[in-house]
Amino acid sequence: MFNDNKLIILGSTGSIGKSTLEVIKHNKDSFEVICLTADSSSVALAEQINLFKPKYAYLNNFLLIDDLKSRITHNQTIVITDINQLHDILKSDIYNTLVSAMSGSTGLLLTFLALQSNKKVLLANKESLVMAGDLFSKYRKQIIPIDSEHNAIFQVIGNLNCEEISKITLTASGGPFRAYPRSKFEQITVEMALKHPNWSMGRKITIDSATMMNKCLEIIEAYYLFNLKSDQIDVLVHPESIIHSIVNYKDGSSLCQFSEPNMQIPISYALGYPNRINSGVGSFDLSSIENLNFSKVDHDKFPSINYAYKALDGSGNSCLVINAANELAVNAFLERQISFLSIFSIIEDSFSITLNSMITSIEEILDADIMYRQKINQIIIKYLIN
Amino acid sequence: MFNDNKLIILGSTGSIGKSTLEVIKHNKDSFEVICLTADSSSVALAEQINLFKPKYAYLNNFLLIDDLKSRITHNQTIVITDINQLHDILKSDIYNTLVSAMSGSTGLLLTFLALQSNKKVLLANKESLVMAGDLFSKYRKQIIPIDSEHNAIFQVIGNLNCEEISKITLTASGGPFRAYPRSKFEQITVEMALKHPNWSMGRKITIDSATMMNKCLEIIEAYYLFNLKSDQIDVLVHPESIIHSIVNYKDGSSLCQFSEPNMQIPISYALGYPNRINSGVGSFDLSSIENLNFSKVDHDKFPSINYAYKALDGSGNSCLVINAANELAVNAFLERQISFLSIFSIIEDSFSITLNSMITSIEEILDADIMYRQKINQIIIKYLIN
Repeated sequence: MFNDNKLIILGSTGSIGKSTLEVIKHNKDSFEVICLTADSSSVALAEQINLFKPKYAYLNNFLLIDDLKSRITHNQTIVITDINQLHDILKSDIYNTLVSAMSGSTGLLLTFLALQSNKKVLLANKESLVMAGDLFSKYRKQIIPIDSEHNAIFQVIGNLNCEEISKITLTASGGPFRAYPRSKFEQITVEMALKHPNWSMGRKITIDSATMMNKCLEIIEAYYLFNLKSDQIDVLVHPESIIHSIVNYKDGSSLCQFSEPNMQIPISYALGYPNRINSGVGSFDLSSIENLNFSKVDHDKFPSINYAYKALDGSGNSCLVINAANELAVNAFLERQISFLSIFSIIEDSFSITLNSMITSIEEILDADIMYRQKINQIIIKYLIN
Repeated sequence: MFNDNKLIILGSTGSIGKSTLEVIKHNKDSFEVICLTADSSSVALAEQINLFKPKYAYLNNFLLIDDLKSRITHNQTIVITDINQLHDILKSDIYNTLVSAMSGSTGLLLTFLALQSNKKVLLANKESLVMAGDLFSKYRKQIIPIDSEHNAIFQVIGNLNCEEISKITLTASGGPFRAYPRSKFEQITVEMALKHPNWSMGRKITIDSATMMNKCLEIIEAYYLFNLKSDQIDVLVHPESIIHSIVNYKDGSSLCQFSEPNMQIPISYALGYPNRINSGVGSFDLSSIENLNFSKVDHDKFPSINYAYKALDGSGNSCLVINAANELAVNAFLERQISFLSIFSIIEDSFSITLNSMITSIEEILDADIMYRQKINQIIIKYLIN
């Protein structure tokens, strides 16, 4: 039944991309890999090309093309470096499903091309719905979320928002500083923030987990993905990351999805949907963990959650601004230019940036993003550690 | 959309019956009560008749008919005492949905009549699937379970057993003796066994919870209701009774339903299905409980779980025998004629009763049941406290 699964994976050498290929290994006969793309991991991309034999491969860093080519033993793969060629591939009919696991605004543009070309999109690129929620939500019936939280909601309700739902509750591990006292937040270092208790992820998203800005962004994504009101989206701290999210119905019942915290689970669900395929991961036995804990978010420690509601109650532009502010602030923190707490201050200050009122296309969004980033950089200067 | 909901409630004055009418109060315009039945609670039945104004009411104890009639202010209700008249009503088309909340073998027969007459049956009568699983499972597409555990599974998968399910996991509170040492089981009194930690239920089912024989019977029900293999049904101890049961998929995902432990939740789901209606109960906030606990069943303390698999691996008759053995043993325990531990011994001994091989009708089942009960009474005699 999966003979028609022709995949393009954007960001195949990242954490989500690797997990996607791992799931495909368990379902070899069901999927054909048409194209793989990577930013600059030529070694990993070459290995993937040799194993999955795609028709095309794209490497963003052209300085590494020769290195990549020297490592490829499967010579049928056409290596491209021109982003316009990748655009052409995304607009074509040589594939039907895009796995959007490339982060940043480049991922956003490429993902939008796939949606406009009527493809099924398995979405891990957070920027898409945060930066361009209004535009992307028009195509939401084509989108299957890969994020463990949104995927959990999707497993319960699909992309139907029905009258019977009271709200959805996104669970949050609370990150490494859940139980850390607010009074010591001044002293948080990059090393401390990079230690996530449950998930192994990229650096940016790991910091987002430490600030709980990941949950702020996920609230915005859920808003657009499931066509909910902002007050229908709640957050619950659940340190074990076993229950991945909850649908609360008006009749007092709640349905939720749980599993081992392993991205192969939501990825396999998205790949196989509406069927379930082999994820390579076993069932989670609740008796192995003995107890699951739950608590409310401490908004004093993590003002980040409130930013989501504030941004959603503003214009679509507000989400664009806080996303940019967060990205730049996290970069500056990782470069040890600002303190951990300054991430919050920079995002808060960014709410005062004057917004463009008329934005109707992806190009305008990307232009506005560049302009906002200039203004945010001005803000960041104020917080630089001498 | 519910204009066509014409209900008969068997056992309206019991715990499930009362909760059903409570839900109907919250959805007055959607349901019409056609007939209420009770065993001998004339006072409660009269109150229900005056409030819900059914066309018919049946009281099993004819000595209390005059008392009942003297309390009825709604004189349009026809009070019947002849069980054959109740049979005629169940075979008729003046209703479309039966709430089967009457316990025991009488409930089984009446429920079967409703199924044969093509009615939707909301099933709380445990005997139906335990005593006559093979016969009832032919009509399983007409059945919506009310039991919180089976209803939870039903909320996730409906009455579809699909290839993608690895197993279902029925949660169990573990009853009042979950943490009580096995060495003290000899000293368990009736009073101790009647104190259930989470649910307020009838006496028989409360003892079944203390022995975990309720979970044994629920495994058998799940086997027939969801068309599963016996090794696809597992039990997990979860003392808080918040997660009501779990569907484990082969891809490592599990979906579960949770709510406040209140029977109005599964009843409202069954009444409204496929829609959700007002249950009168609010959403359960997991942060209010802080943590949920899980552990494996201690089979030394509760051999009852094993009886289910042993009975299901035998003939359908085995389930009939252990149900009868349990019912008679619980009665004897409640009458203080046998000890708590003797309930297990009597059920174990009953496995040695020679079984009828050819049983194909409800009447033959009920005849066999009477015969088995005679043999079980012989066993019980051995365990009487002097």
